[in-house]
Amino acid sequence: MTYCLAIKVNDGLILASDSRTNAGVDYVSTYSKMHVFDKPGESFFVLLTAGNLATTQAVVNSVKRDLDDLHAEQSLNTMEYAFDAAHYIGAINHRVQQEYNEALKIAGASAEASFILGGQIAGQSHEIYLIYPQGNYIAASPETSYLQIGESKYGKPILDRVITLETSLEDAARCALVSLDSTMRSNISVGPPVELAFYRKDQLALERHLTLESNAPLFRRIQHRWNEGLRRSFNSLPRFEWEPKRD
Amino acid sequence: MTYCLAIKVNDGLILASDSRTNAGVDYVSTYSKMHVFDKPGESFFVLLTAGNLATTQAVVNSVKRDLDDLHAEQSLNTMEYAFDAAHYIGAINHRVQQEYNEALKIAGASAEASFILGGQIAGQSHEIYLIYPQGNYIAASPETSYLQIGESKYGKPILDRVITLETSLEDAARCALVSLDSTMRSNISVGPPVELAFYRKDQLALERHLTLESNAPLFRRIQHRWNEGLRRSFNSLPRFEWEPKRD
Repeated sequence: MTYCLAIKVNDGLILASDSRTNAGVDYVSTYSKMHVFDKPGESFFVLLTAGNLATTQAVVNSVKRDLDDLHAEQSLNTMEYAFDAAHYIGAINHRVQQEYNEALKIAGASAEASFILGGQIAGQSHEIYLIYPQGNYIAASPETSYLQIGESKYGKPILDRVITLETSLEDAARCALVSLDSTMRSNISVGPPVELAFYRKDQLALERHLTLESNAPLFRRIQHRWNEGLRRSFNSLPRFEWEPKRD
Repeated sequence: MTYCLAIKVNDGLILASDSRTNAGVDYVSTYSKMHVFDKPGESFFVLLTAGNLATTQAVVNSVKRDLDDLHAEQSLNTMEYAFDAAHYIGAINHRVQQEYNEALKIAGASAEASFILGGQIAGQSHEIYLIYPQGNYIAASPETSYLQIGESKYGKPILDRVITLETSLEDAARCALVSLDSTMRSNISVGPPVELAFYRKDQLALERHLTLESNAPLFRRIQHRWNEGLRRSFNSLPRFEWEPKRD
Protein backbone atom coordinates (compact mmCIF):
# COMPACT_ATOMS: atom_id res chain seq x y z
CA MET A 1 0.00 0.00 0.00
CA THR A 2 0.94 3.65 -0.08
CA TYR A 3 -0.23 6.97 1.24
CA CYS A 4 0.52 10.17 -0.64
CA LEU A 5 -1.19 13.51 -0.42
CA ALA A 6 -0.99 16.98 -1.86
CA ILE A 7 -2.37 20.12 -0.28
CA LYS A 8 -3.00 23.31 -2.21
CA VAL A 9 -3.11 26.55 -0.23
CA ASN A 10 -2.96 30.14 -1.38
CA ASP A 11 0.75 30.29 -0.53
CA GLY A 12 1.73 27.19 -2.48
CA LEU A 13 1.75 23.41 -2.39
CA ILE A 14 2.69 20.73 0.11
CA LEU A 15 3.34 17.25 -1.25
CA ALA A 16 3.94 14.31 1.06
CA SER A 17 4.53 10.60 0.61
CA ASP A 18 5.43 7.48 2.53
CA SER A 19 8.09 5.10 1.15
CA ARG A 20 6.87 1.56 1.79
CA THR A 21 6.15 -0.87 -1.01
CA ASN A 22 5.16 -4.48 -0.70
CA ALA A 23 4.44 -7.52 -2.83
CA GLY A 24 2.31 -9.52 -0.44
CA VAL A 25 3.20 -9.15 3.22
CA ASP A 26 6.44 -11.08 2.93
CA TYR A 27 8.27 -8.77 0.55
CA VAL A 28 8.46 -5.24 1.87
CA SER A 29 10.80 -2.59 0.48
CA THR A 30 11.54 1.12 0.60
CA TYR A 31 11.12 3.25 -2.51
CA SER A 32 10.69 6.98 -2.89
CA LYS A 33 7.29 7.84 -4.32
CA MET A 34 8.08 11.50 -4.95
CA HIS A 35 9.59 12.69 -8.23
CA VAL A 36 10.48 16.30 -9.01
CA PHE A 37 10.70 17.67 -12.56
CA ASP A 38 11.49 21.33 -12.98
CA LYS A 39 12.64 23.67 -15.69
CA PRO A 40 13.89 26.67 -13.72
CA GLY A 41 11.92 29.79 -14.41
CA GLU A 42 9.43 27.98 -16.66
CA SER A 43 7.71 25.12 -14.91
CA PHE A 44 7.78 22.99 -11.79
CA PHE A 45 6.14 19.60 -11.23
CA VAL A 46 6.11 16.99 -8.46
CA LEU A 47 4.71 13.55 -9.20
CA LEU A 48 3.52 11.26 -6.35
CA THR A 49 2.90 7.60 -7.13
CA ALA A 50 0.69 4.78 -5.80
CA GLY A 51 -0.17 1.32 -7.04
CA ASN A 52 1.75 -1.25 -9.05
CA LEU A 53 5.45 -0.38 -8.66
CA ALA A 54 6.40 -1.63 -12.14
CA THR A 55 3.73 0.63 -13.61
CA THR A 56 4.74 3.71 -11.62
CA GLN A 57 8.43 3.19 -12.46
CA ALA A 58 7.60 2.75 -16.16
CA VAL A 59 5.54 5.96 -16.12
CA VAL A 60 8.34 7.92 -14.41
CA ASN A 61 10.88 6.48 -16.86
CA SER A 62 8.72 7.48 -19.78
CA VAL A 63 8.38 11.03 -18.43
CA LYS A 64 12.18 11.22 -18.07
CA ARG A 65 12.81 9.84 -21.54
CA ASP A 66 10.54 12.48 -23.07
CA LEU A 67 12.36 15.22 -21.14
CA ASP A 68 15.73 13.96 -22.41
CA ASP A 69 14.53 13.71 -25.99
CA LEU A 70 14.76 17.14 -27.56
CA HIS A 71 12.64 15.90 -30.47
CA ALA A 72 9.88 14.41 -28.31
CA GLU A 73 6.42 15.37 -29.51
CA GLN A 74 5.40 16.02 -25.91
CA SER A 75 7.14 16.31 -22.55
CA LEU A 76 6.52 18.04 -19.23
CA ASN A 77 8.48 20.95 -20.71
CA THR A 78 6.11 21.44 -23.64
CA MET A 79 2.85 21.69 -21.68
CA GLU A 80 0.71 24.74 -22.17
CA TYR A 81 -1.40 24.26 -19.03
CA ALA A 82 -0.94 22.22 -15.85
CA PHE A 83 -4.00 20.15 -16.77
CA ASP A 84 -2.26 19.25 -20.04
CA ALA A 85 0.48 17.75 -17.88
CA ALA A 86 -2.11 15.75 -15.92
CA HIS A 87 -3.59 14.55 -19.20
CA TYR A 88 -0.12 13.59 -20.46
CA ILE A 89 0.70 11.57 -17.30
CA GLY A 90 -2.73 9.92 -17.47
CA ALA A 91 -2.19 8.85 -21.06
CA ILE A 92 1.22 7.32 -20.26
CA ASN A 93 -0.28 5.59 -17.20
CA HIS A 94 -3.07 4.07 -19.26
CA ARG A 95 -0.69 2.99 -22.04
CA VAL A 96 1.75 1.28 -19.64
CA GLN A 97 -1.08 -0.61 -17.95
CA GLN A 98 -2.49 -1.78 -21.29
CA GLU A 99 0.78 -3.59 -21.99
CA TYR A 100 0.63 -5.72 -18.83
CA ASN A 101 -3.03 -5.80 -17.89
CA GLU A 102 -3.88 -9.09 -19.51
CA ALA A 103 -0.90 -11.00 -18.11
CA LEU A 104 -1.37 -9.55 -14.63
CA LYS A 105 -5.09 -10.33 -14.59
CA ILE A 106 -4.31 -13.98 -15.31
CA ALA A 107 -1.87 -13.91 -12.39
CA GLY A 108 -4.59 -12.42 -10.16
CA ALA A 109 -2.73 -9.13 -9.87
CA SER A 110 -3.37 -5.61 -11.10
CA ALA A 111 -1.27 -3.20 -13.14
CA GLU A 112 -3.24 -0.22 -11.81
CA ALA A 113 -1.50 2.90 -10.59
CA SER A 114 -2.63 6.36 -9.49
CA PHE A 115 -0.72 9.61 -9.39
CA ILE A 116 -0.87 13.05 -7.88
CA LEU A 117 0.66 15.79 -9.97
CA GLY A 118 1.36 19.11 -8.32
CA GLY A 119 3.00 22.07 -9.97
CA GLN A 120 2.91 25.35 -11.76
CA ILE A 121 3.67 26.73 -15.20
CA ALA A 122 5.09 30.28 -15.32
CA GLY A 123 2.35 32.89 -15.38
CA GLN A 124 -0.38 30.44 -14.30
CA SER A 125 -1.68 29.37 -10.91
CA HIS A 126 -0.27 26.45 -8.91
CA GLU A 127 -2.41 23.31 -9.13
CA ILE A 128 -2.77 19.71 -7.94
CA TYR A 129 -4.35 16.84 -9.88
CA LEU A 130 -5.28 13.28 -9.01
CA ILE A 131 -4.75 10.98 -12.00
CA TYR A 132 -6.77 7.75 -11.98
CA PRO A 133 -5.64 4.34 -13.27
CA GLN A 134 -7.86 4.88 -16.33
CA GLY A 135 -5.96 8.05 -17.21
CA ASN A 136 -8.65 10.61 -16.36
CA TYR A 137 -7.96 13.20 -13.68
CA ILE A 138 -9.47 15.71 -11.28
CA ALA A 139 -8.23 18.93 -9.70
CA ALA A 140 -8.76 19.93 -6.06
CA SER A 141 -11.55 22.37 -5.21
CA PRO A 142 -11.45 25.49 -3.04
CA GLU A 143 -13.65 23.62 -0.51
CA THR A 144 -11.52 20.46 -0.47
CA SER A 145 -8.11 21.72 -1.36
CA TYR A 146 -6.22 18.45 -0.94
CA LEU A 147 -5.94 15.17 -2.83
CA GLN A 148 -4.94 11.72 -1.61
CA ILE A 149 -3.90 8.43 -3.24
CA GLY A 150 -3.46 5.00 -1.66
CA GLU A 151 -4.60 4.39 1.92
CA SER A 152 -6.48 7.65 2.29
CA LYS A 153 -9.08 7.07 5.00
CA TYR A 154 -7.17 7.01 8.30
CA GLY A 155 -5.55 10.35 7.55
CA LYS A 156 -8.55 12.18 6.08
CA PRO A 157 -10.40 13.46 9.19
CA ILE A 158 -7.58 15.79 10.28
CA LEU A 159 -7.32 17.25 6.76
CA ASP A 160 -11.04 17.95 6.74
CA ARG A 161 -10.79 19.77 10.05
CA VAL A 162 -7.70 21.87 9.37
CA ILE A 163 -7.05 22.58 5.71
CA THR A 164 -8.44 25.65 3.95
CA LEU A 165 -6.88 27.77 1.21
CA GLU A 166 -5.82 30.24 3.93
CA THR A 167 -3.74 27.65 5.83
CA SER A 168 -0.04 28.57 5.86
CA LEU A 169 2.41 26.38 3.98
CA GLU A 170 4.03 25.25 7.23
CA ASP A 171 0.70 24.45 8.89
CA ALA A 172 -0.28 22.45 5.81
CA ALA A 173 3.01 20.56 6.11
CA ARG A 174 2.37 19.82 9.81
CA CYS A 175 -1.12 18.64 8.92
CA ALA A 176 0.31 16.35 6.25
CA LEU A 177 2.72 14.86 8.83
CA VAL A 178 -0.12 14.25 11.30
CA SER A 179 -2.20 12.69 8.54
CA LEU A 180 0.68 10.41 7.56
CA ASP A 181 1.37 9.54 11.20
CA SER A 182 -2.27 8.49 11.79
CA THR A 183 -2.10 6.33 8.67
CA MET A 184 1.20 4.68 9.57
CA ARG A 185 -0.14 3.79 13.01
CA SER A 186 -3.13 1.99 11.53
CA ASN A 187 -1.77 0.46 8.33
CA ILE A 188 1.55 -1.33 8.50
CA SER A 189 1.87 -1.23 4.72
CA VAL A 190 2.37 2.55 4.91
CA GLY A 191 5.79 3.35 6.33
CA PRO A 192 8.76 5.70 6.68
CA PRO A 193 10.71 7.56 5.58
CA VAL A 194 8.21 10.31 4.95
CA GLU A 195 9.05 12.79 2.22
CA LEU A 196 7.76 16.32 2.39
CA ALA A 197 8.07 18.88 -0.40
CA PHE A 198 7.39 22.59 0.10
CA TYR A 199 6.58 24.59 -3.00
CA ARG A 200 5.97 28.32 -2.63
CA LYS A 201 3.87 29.70 -5.47
CA ASP A 202 5.57 31.47 -8.34
CA GLN A 203 9.02 30.19 -7.32
CA LEU A 204 9.02 27.50 -10.05
CA ALA A 205 11.53 25.61 -7.92
CA LEU A 206 11.36 23.45 -4.81
CA GLU A 207 11.66 25.55 -1.65
CA ARG A 208 12.42 22.65 0.67
CA HIS A 209 12.49 18.88 0.64
CA LEU A 210 12.59 16.88 3.89
CA THR A 211 13.09 13.15 4.25
CA LEU A 212 12.03 12.13 7.74
CA GLU A 213 12.87 8.71 9.15
CA SER A 214 10.54 7.52 11.88
CA ASN A 215 13.14 8.49 14.52
CA ALA A 216 13.74 11.99 13.11
CA PRO A 217 13.57 14.39 16.07
CA LEU A 218 11.05 16.69 14.36
CA PHE A 219 8.76 13.81 13.48
CA ARG A 220 9.03 12.34 16.98
CA ARG A 221 8.25 15.70 18.58
CA ILE A 222 5.20 16.20 16.37
CA GLN A 223 3.95 12.65 17.07
CA HIS A 224 4.46 13.07 20.80
CA ARG A 225 2.85 16.50 21.02
CA TRP A 226 -0.10 15.44 18.85
CA ASN A 227 -0.70 12.35 20.94
CA GLU A 228 -0.58 14.44 24.13
CA GLY A 229 -2.88 17.07 22.64
CA LEU A 230 -5.43 14.45 21.57
CA ARG A 231 -5.45 12.89 25.02
CA ARG A 232 -5.88 16.26 26.66
CA SER A 233 -8.70 17.14 24.26
CA PHE A 234 -10.31 13.79 24.91
CA ASN A 235 -10.07 14.20 28.66
CA SER A 236 -11.79 17.56 28.50
CA LEU A 237 -14.82 16.31 26.55
CA PRO A 238 -18.23 16.98 28.17
CA ARG A 239 -19.35 14.36 30.68
CA PHE A 240 -22.65 12.50 30.61
CA GLU A 241 -25.28 14.04 32.87
CA TRP A 242 -25.13 11.15 35.34
CA GLU A 243 -21.36 11.38 35.80
CA PRO A 244 -19.86 13.27 38.76
CA LYS A 245 -18.18 16.52 37.78
CA ARG A 246 -14.44 16.41 37.08
CA ASP A 247 -12.11 17.24 39.98
CA MET B 1 -22.62 1.64 4.43
CA THR B 2 -22.62 1.35 8.18
CA TYR B 3 -20.33 1.92 11.11
CA CYS B 4 -20.75 -0.09 14.29
CA LEU B 5 -18.24 -0.71 17.04
CA ALA B 6 -17.96 -2.47 20.36
CA ILE B 7 -15.47 -1.67 23.08
CA LYS B 8 -14.60 -4.05 25.87
CA VAL B 9 -13.14 -2.58 29.04
CA ASN B 10 -12.69 -4.08 32.48
CA ASP B 11 -15.87 -2.36 33.67
CA GLY B 12 -18.10 -3.63 30.88
CA LEU B 13 -19.04 -3.06 27.27
CA ILE B 14 -19.91 -0.09 25.06
CA LEU B 15 -21.75 -0.81 21.84
CA ALA B 16 -22.41 1.91 19.28
CA SER B 17 -24.00 2.07 15.86
CA ASP B 18 -25.10 4.52 13.21
CA SER B 19 -28.55 4.16 11.58
CA ARG B 20 -28.12 4.89 7.90
CA THR B 21 -28.83 2.31 5.21
CA ASN B 22 -28.72 2.79 1.49
CA ALA B 23 -29.38 0.93 -1.73
CA GLY B 24 -27.26 2.93 -4.11
CA VAL B 25 -26.96 6.62 -3.32
CA ASP B 26 -30.53 7.39 -4.33
CA TYR B 27 -32.32 5.29 -1.73
CA VAL B 28 -31.27 6.18 1.79
CA SER B 29 -33.17 5.11 4.91
CA THR B 30 -32.88 4.96 8.67
CA TYR B 31 -32.83 1.61 10.45
CA SER B 32 -31.61 0.69 13.90
CA LYS B 33 -28.61 -1.64 13.72
CA MET B 34 -28.61 -2.49 17.43
CA HIS B 35 -30.62 -5.39 18.83
CA VAL B 36 -30.75 -6.36 22.50
CA PHE B 37 -31.58 -9.89 23.69
CA ASP B 38 -31.51 -10.54 27.39
CA LYS B 39 -32.72 -13.15 29.82
CA PRO B 40 -32.60 -11.29 33.14
CA GLY B 41 -30.17 -12.84 35.58
CA GLU B 42 -28.95 -15.39 33.04
CA SER B 43 -27.58 -13.81 29.90
CA PHE B 44 -27.34 -10.54 28.03
CA PHE B 45 -26.51 -9.98 24.36
CA VAL B 46 -26.36 -7.02 21.98
CA LEU B 47 -26.12 -7.66 18.26
CA LEU B 48 -24.83 -4.95 15.88
CA THR B 49 -25.37 -5.41 12.16
CA ALA B 50 -23.66 -4.35 8.91
CA GLY B 51 -24.07 -5.34 5.28
CA ASN B 52 -27.05 -6.47 3.23
CA LEU B 53 -30.16 -5.28 5.10
CA ALA B 54 -32.31 -8.21 4.00
CA THR B 55 -29.66 -10.58 5.35
CA THR B 56 -29.29 -8.79 8.68
CA GLN B 57 -33.06 -8.61 9.16
CA ALA B 58 -33.43 -12.30 8.34
CA VAL B 59 -30.70 -13.17 10.85
CA VAL B 60 -32.34 -11.08 13.59
CA ASN B 61 -35.73 -12.61 12.77
CA SER B 62 -34.27 -16.09 13.00
CA VAL B 63 -32.70 -15.30 16.38
CA LYS B 64 -36.10 -14.03 17.62
CA ARG B 65 -37.99 -17.04 16.29
CA ASP B 66 -35.61 -19.40 18.12
CA LEU B 67 -36.08 -17.41 21.35
CA ASP B 68 -39.87 -17.64 21.00
CA ASP B 69 -39.81 -21.36 20.25
CA LEU B 70 -39.58 -23.24 23.55
CA HIS B 71 -38.70 -26.40 21.64
CA ALA B 72 -35.94 -24.83 19.54
CA GLU B 73 -32.83 -26.96 19.46
CA GLN B 74 -30.73 -23.85 20.00
CA SER B 75 -31.35 -20.22 20.90
CA LEU B 76 -29.43 -17.39 22.54
CA ASN B 77 -30.94 -18.68 25.82
CA THR B 78 -29.40 -22.15 25.51
CA MET B 79 -25.79 -21.11 24.93
CA GLU B 80 -23.16 -22.50 27.26
CA TYR B 81 -20.47 -19.95 26.37
CA ALA B 82 -20.54 -16.52 24.71
CA PHE B 83 -18.47 -17.93 21.84
CA ASP B 84 -21.21 -20.51 21.28
CA ALA B 85 -23.54 -17.58 20.70
CA ALA B 86 -21.10 -16.09 18.17
CA HIS B 87 -20.92 -19.47 16.43
CA TYR B 88 -24.72 -19.69 16.40
CA ILE B 89 -25.13 -16.21 14.84
CA GLY B 90 -22.40 -17.03 12.32
CA ALA B 91 -24.17 -20.22 11.26
CA ILE B 92 -27.48 -18.39 10.76
CA ASN B 93 -25.69 -15.63 8.84
CA HIS B 94 -24.05 -18.13 6.52
CA ARG B 95 -27.28 -20.06 5.99
CA VAL B 96 -29.32 -16.95 5.15
CA GLN B 97 -26.70 -15.81 2.64
CA GLN B 98 -26.61 -19.21 0.95
CA GLU B 99 -30.29 -18.84 0.09
CA TYR B 100 -29.83 -15.58 -1.84
CA ASN B 101 -26.17 -15.60 -2.89
CA GLU B 102 -26.66 -16.97 -6.36
CA ALA B 103 -29.51 -14.65 -7.31
CA LEU B 104 -27.77 -11.59 -5.87
CA LYS B 105 -24.50 -12.38 -7.63
CA ILE B 106 -26.32 -12.45 -10.97
CA ALA B 107 -27.77 -9.04 -10.08
CA GLY B 108 -24.27 -7.76 -9.29
CA ALA B 109 -25.07 -7.42 -5.59
CA SER B 110 -23.94 -9.19 -2.46
CA ALA B 111 -25.84 -10.93 0.33
CA GLU B 112 -22.91 -10.49 2.72
CA ALA B 113 -23.41 -9.27 6.27
CA SER B 114 -21.20 -8.92 9.34
CA PHE B 115 -22.13 -8.73 12.98
CA ILE B 116 -20.71 -7.73 16.31
CA LEU B 117 -22.02 -9.68 19.26
CA GLY B 118 -21.38 -8.33 22.74
CA GLY B 119 -22.63 -9.86 25.93
CA GLN B 120 -22.20 -12.00 28.97
CA ILE B 121 -23.50 -15.29 30.33
CA ALA B 122 -23.96 -15.46 34.11
CA GLY B 123 -20.77 -16.53 35.89
CA GLN B 124 -18.58 -15.89 32.84
CA SER B 125 -16.69 -12.83 31.60
CA HIS B 126 -18.19 -10.19 29.29
CA GLU B 127 -17.04 -10.56 25.68
CA ILE B 128 -17.29 -9.08 22.20
CA TYR B 129 -17.08 -10.98 18.90
CA LEU B 130 -16.86 -9.95 15.27
CA ILE B 131 -18.75 -12.41 13.05
CA TYR B 132 -17.68 -12.51 9.41
CA PRO B 133 -19.93 -13.04 6.37
CA GLN B 134 -18.58 -16.59 6.12
CA GLY B 135 -19.79 -17.35 9.64
CA ASN B 136 -16.43 -17.54 11.39
CA TYR B 137 -15.68 -15.11 14.21
CA ILE B 138 -12.99 -13.48 16.33
CA ALA B 139 -12.90 -12.04 19.86
CA ALA B 140 -11.18 -8.81 20.83
CA SER B 141 -7.74 -8.99 22.46
CA PRO B 142 -6.45 -7.26 25.60
CA GLU B 143 -4.16 -5.16 23.34
CA THR B 144 -6.93 -4.20 20.89
CA SER B 145 -10.03 -4.35 22.98
CA TYR B 146 -12.47 -3.06 20.38
CA LEU B 147 -14.08 -4.41 17.22
CA GLN B 148 -15.55 -2.58 14.23
CA ILE B 149 -17.77 -3.46 11.28
CA GLY B 150 -18.63 -1.43 8.18
CA GLU B 151 -16.73 1.79 7.47
CA SER B 152 -14.06 1.28 10.10
CA LYS B 153 -11.05 3.30 8.96
CA TYR B 154 -11.92 6.94 9.60
CA GLY B 155 -12.79 6.23 13.22
CA LYS B 156 -9.96 3.86 14.08
CA PRO B 157 -7.07 6.23 14.94
CA ILE B 158 -8.81 7.70 18.00
CA LEU B 159 -9.66 4.20 19.32
CA ASP B 160 -6.02 3.17 18.96
CA ARG B 161 -4.88 6.20 20.93
CA VAL B 162 -7.41 6.06 23.77
CA ILE B 163 -8.85 2.62 24.45
CA THR B 164 -7.28 0.20 26.94
CA LEU B 165 -8.94 -2.30 29.26
CA GLU B 166 -8.56 0.28 32.06
CA THR B 167 -10.62 2.94 30.24
CA SER B 168 -13.82 3.78 32.13
CA LEU B 169 -17.16 2.86 30.60
CA GLU B 170 -18.05 6.54 30.13
CA ASP B 171 -14.70 7.38 28.52
CA ALA B 172 -15.13 4.41 26.20
CA ALA B 173 -18.59 5.77 25.29
CA ARG B 174 -17.16 9.24 24.59
CA CYS B 175 -14.45 7.67 22.45
CA ALA B 176 -17.09 5.73 20.51
CA LEU B 177 -18.99 8.99 19.88
CA VAL B 178 -15.84 10.74 18.64
CA SER B 179 -15.05 7.74 16.43
CA LEU B 180 -18.57 7.81 14.97
CA ASP B 181 -18.43 11.58 14.50
CA SER B 182 -15.15 11.36 12.52
CA THR B 183 -16.71 8.67 10.35
CA MET B 184 -19.94 10.56 9.72
CA ARG B 185 -17.98 13.65 8.67
CA SER B 186 -16.04 11.68 6.04
CA ASN B 187 -18.57 9.14 4.78
CA ILE B 188 -22.05 10.36 3.98
CA SER B 189 -23.38 6.78 3.98
CA VAL B 190 -22.85 6.64 7.76
CA GLY B 191 -25.44 8.76 9.53
CA PRO B 192 -27.50 9.55 12.62
CA PRO B 193 -29.17 8.76 14.89
CA VAL B 194 -26.31 7.20 16.81
CA GLU B 195 -27.23 4.48 19.30
CA LEU B 196 -25.09 3.90 22.33
CA ALA B 197 -25.50 0.98 24.75
CA PHE B 198 -23.81 0.86 28.15
CA TYR B 199 -23.41 -2.58 29.68
CA ARG B 200 -21.80 -2.83 33.12
CA LYS B 201 -20.28 -6.24 33.73
CA ASP B 202 -22.21 -8.80 35.74
CA GLN B 203 -25.46 -6.79 35.50
CA LEU B 204 -26.88 -9.10 32.79
CA ALA B 205 -29.09 -6.19 31.75
CA LEU B 206 -28.62 -2.98 29.80
CA GLU B 207 -27.49 -0.14 32.06
CA ARG B 208 -28.32 2.65 29.59
CA HIS B 209 -29.33 3.10 26.00
CA LEU B 210 -29.02 6.48 24.27
CA THR B 211 -30.32 7.41 20.85
CA LEU B 212 -28.63 10.61 19.73
CA GLU B 213 -29.90 12.60 16.76
CA SER B 214 -27.28 14.80 15.11
CA ASN B 215 -28.72 17.84 16.88
CA ALA B 216 -28.78 16.22 20.33
CA PRO B 217 -27.20 18.74 22.75
CA LEU B 218 -24.75 16.18 24.18
CA PHE B 219 -23.58 15.11 20.74
CA ARG B 220 -23.25 18.72 19.57
CA ARG B 221 -21.25 19.65 22.67
CA ILE B 222 -18.90 16.71 22.20
CA GLN B 223 -18.44 17.50 18.49
CA HIS B 224 -17.79 21.15 19.22
CA ARG B 225 -15.37 20.55 22.08
CA TRP B 226 -13.49 17.86 20.15
CA ASN B 227 -13.12 20.09 17.12
CA GLU B 228 -11.85 22.92 19.32
CA GLY B 229 -9.44 20.59 21.13
CA LEU B 230 -8.03 19.25 17.87
CA ARG B 231 -7.47 22.75 16.54
CA ARG B 232 -5.78 23.80 19.74
CA SER B 233 -3.59 20.68 19.69
CA PHE B 234 -2.78 21.30 16.06
CA ASN B 235 -1.85 24.92 16.69
CA SER B 236 0.55 23.93 19.45
CA LEU B 237 2.51 21.45 17.33
CA PRO B 238 6.28 22.06 17.11
CA ARG B 239 7.34 24.50 14.41
CA PHE B 240 9.92 23.85 11.73
CA GLU B 241 13.37 25.17 12.59
CA TRP B 242 13.18 27.93 9.97
CA GLU B 243 9.87 29.29 11.26
CA PRO B 244 9.76 32.27 13.61
CA LYS B 245 8.73 31.37 17.17
CA ARG B 246 5.06 31.67 18.07
CA ASP B 247 3.92 34.91 19.67
